[in-house]
Amino acid sequence: MSPTITAFKASPDRGRGLARDMRVRWALEEVGLPYDVRLVTFAEMKAPAHLTRHPFGQIPTYEDGDLALFESGAIVLHIAERHAGLLPAGADARARAITWVFAALGTVEPPILDLQVARILEHDKPWAEARLPLVEDRIRVRLRQLSDRLGDADWLDGGFSAGDLMMASVLLRLGASGLLAEHPNLAAYVARAEARPAYQRAFAAQLAVFVAASGG
Amino acid sequence: MSPTITAFKASPDRGRGLARDMRVRWALEEVGLPYDVRLVTFAEMKAPAHLTRHPFGQIPTYEDGDLALFESGAIVLHIAERHAGLLPAGADARARAITWVFAALGTVEPPILDLQVARILEHDKPWAEARLPLVEDRIRVRLRQLSDRLGDADWLDGGFSAGDLMMASVLLRLGASGLLAEHPNLAAYVARAEARPAYQRAFAAQLAVFVAASGG
Repeated sequence: MSPTITAFKASPDRGRGLARDMRVRWALEEVGLPYDVRLVTFAEMKAPAHLTRHPFGQIPTYEDGDLALFESGAIVLHIAERHAGLLPAGADARARAITWVFAALGTVEPPILDLQVARILEHDKPWAEARLPLVEDRIRVRLRQLSDRLGDADWLDGGFSAGDLMMASVLLRLGASGLLAEHPNLAAYVARAEARPAYQRAFAAQLAVFVAASGG
Repeated sequence: MSPTITAFKASPDRGRGLARDMRVRWALEEVGLPYDVRLVTFAEMKAPAHLTRHPFGQIPTYEDGDLALFESGAIVLHIAERHAGLLPAGADARARAITWVFAALGTVEPPILDLQVARILEHDKPWAEARLPLVEDRIRVRLRQLSDRLGDADWLDGGFSAGDLMMASVLLRLGASGLLAEHPNLAAYVARAEARPAYQRAFAAQLAVFVAASGG
C-alpha cells in the first residue's frame, strides 16, 4: 500500500513549490515510491481529525498503515532510512547527511522564516521597513557560512542526500529576495537541485493541485 | 574511546543550562556514555579549526574517532540510535519519537528563538516594546497546541524519549517569560524532565564549567 501525505488544497504560495509537502513529494520521487495525497483546506487543518495526525495543524503529514508522522524533516528522514537513494551507505557518511537535514531546518531556515514573518505577518507594522535589513543580515551570515562550506562542490557532503534535499528546499524560500544571488555557488547549488528529475516531478505534481484548485 | 563534545568556555546563559551543549550532555547521561569536553571561546568558535567541525561556528560539536558531527538534534539522534535509553524499541514508535525531535527544533523552537532575538538583539530598537506581544502570541499558539496534545500524559508519546529531551530543552528557553506557566501540564512536563537524574548530572557538569570560567 502506498503512503498518504497531506498537502494544501489551495497552497498560499500559488504553486511555487514552497509549501512543505514539496519536500516530502521530492523525497518520495527520489526513492521512487508512489504515494497518495489528501488535500486539506485551512479549516480542515485546524479540525480535530487533522490535529490527531498533526498536533500543530499543519501540512504535510505522512500515513503508512498504522504509522502517522508529521514534520517534513522527520518524514523525509523516515523515507530516507527505508529506501535507497537519499542516504549514503557508510554509517559515518549517513550521520553527516542527517546532520545537514538538521542544519537546514534548525540553523538556516529559522532566519529565513523570520523574513517571511517580517514580510507577511508584520508588513503593515510601523517597524516593517526599518527592521527588514536586520532580518536580512541574519540570513546573510548563514548564507556566507554555507557558501564557504560548499565551496565548489556539487553537494554538501559527497553525493546528493536528504541533507541537500532539505537545504535546497529551505534556500528556495529565499525566492525573489535576491539574497541567494549574492553567493553564485549557492545559487548554482539550488539550480542543480531543481534540475533533478525527481524535483521536477514533485514540482509538477504540486503545481497541478494548485492549478486544479484555482479552476485553471 | 569516549566522544568529545564542544561547549562554551564562558556560556552567555551564565550556567543556566540553556546552551545547546546541554542537550548533548543530557543525552549522553541518559544512555550512560562518558564523554570529554573541549571548551571554546567565542573567538575560537569563529576560527578555521572550529569551522571545520561546525560550518556555522557554533557549539556543540561531537567527535568520535573519524566522525565529526554538529547540530544538537543530529548529535542527540546519533547517540539515541546507537545506545539504549532514548528511543523506543518498535519501528513505528521510534519514528514517532524522532518526529518529536524535529517538532521541537522545527516548530516549537523558532518562535522561542524569535523571542530571544526580540529581547536581546533588538531590545534597543524603537519597535522592541510594541513587537514583543506579537512574538509572544506566536509562541502561545504553539504552546496551546502542545499542551492539548500532551494532555495529562507524562511524556509526548509513551515513555521518555529523545523527543521529550529535545522538547523540554526547547521549552526551558522560555525561562522567566511566564509563558510556560500559562499551561500547568507543560510546566509539570518540564519539571518532570528536569528532575531526571541524567538531566541533573548534565546540568551540574555545565554549571561547573561556568563557575570555573568565572573564577568562582
